[in-house]
Amino acid sequence: MNPVFEAFWYILPAYFANSSPVVLGGGTPMDFGKKWKDGRRILGDGKTWRGFFGGLTVGTLIGVIQYYLMPSYYGSLGLALKLAFLLALGALVGDLIGSFIKRRLDLPRGYPAVGLDQWGFLISALCFAYPVKTIPTGEVLFLLVVTPLIHWGTNVFAYKMGWKSVPW
Amino acid sequence: MNPVFEAFWYILPAYFANSSPVVLGGGTPMDFGKKWKDGRRILGDGKTWRGFFGGLTVGTLIGVIQYYLMPSYYGSLGLALKLAFLLALGALVGDLIGSFIKRRLDLPRGYPAVGLDQWGFLISALCFAYPVKTIPTGEVLFLLVVTPLIHWGTNVFAYKMGWKSVPW
Repeated sequence: MNPVFEAFWYILPAYFANSSPVVLGGGTPMDFGKKWKDGRRILGDGKTWRGFFGGLTVGTLIGVIQYYLMPSYYGSLGLALKLAFLLALGALVGDLIGSFIKRRLDLPRGYPAVGLDQWGFLISALCFAYPVKTIPTGEVLFLLVVTPLIHWGTNVFAYKMGWKSVPW
Repeated sequence: MNPVFEAFWYILPAYFANSSPVVLGGGTPMDFGKKWKDGRRILGDGKTWRGFFGGLTVGTLIGVIQYYLMPSYYGSLGLALKLAFLLALGALVGDLIGSFIKRRLDLPRGYPAVGLDQWGFLISALCFAYPVKTIPTGEVLFLLVVTPLIHWGTNVFAYKMGWKSVPW
């Protein structure tokens, strides 16, 4: 398989999980408005249960579609499901860790943490999925280089479509 | 070779290149005080020629020492030199790209760009060295997870030793 194609194909559930809360989000915040011991919000209003479970569902469903499009890459539907679920969960957990760190540094919600926003969810997704199925080093490095560019491009797009209040 | 040991051994020249400008830095800034078209400095006073060539020299010398400690890992002094030089150059260039992005976002010099500061130099070093010699995916993911912790720890240490004016 072409390595550029494989890299994107592999990471697709993580990309979908990371971007779907922008559309599916809203509702009760995951921290229920609670504060950490530093007096600041644990995660902030940007992280909601609907966004989390929406992202997890969308990411896992992408894996089902991927399996039916290319069953040989996965071997079984079970593995495709497990992989997509872990990539989505890793992406979402990485994003939550990022929000937690940003709140501790007192960065306002939606404020860009350059690097953390673009790489955090990706690195977390790659780590969560690693025990089930992984990609070669060269493809990981490729994703680390192109994801910030894609992340920036899609955020500007989401901002222009009115889905996000800030262009990052 | 133990994968945790190999990961650290492999990346050592990049770590040294990235941290030595703190001690060896100062002097003429690499942008010669010039401004970008947005009216802000290209890189800022934190990036100097002495820091750059100091980091490149230290990183490459680490590779020489590593070769004499473990020649079998490299096969030849030439490869050890080339690898250490590329890891050091990649780390320093990644740091410069980070400074350039931070200046464009109008973050003051020394202001933390969470993620960019910890991952930028590492990802850049891994990419520069990739064509010469690389490490498996699992070791790359390990370095991506532990480097921010080490980076944060050493910066706090450098701050407490009076080598840095801010603890990040």
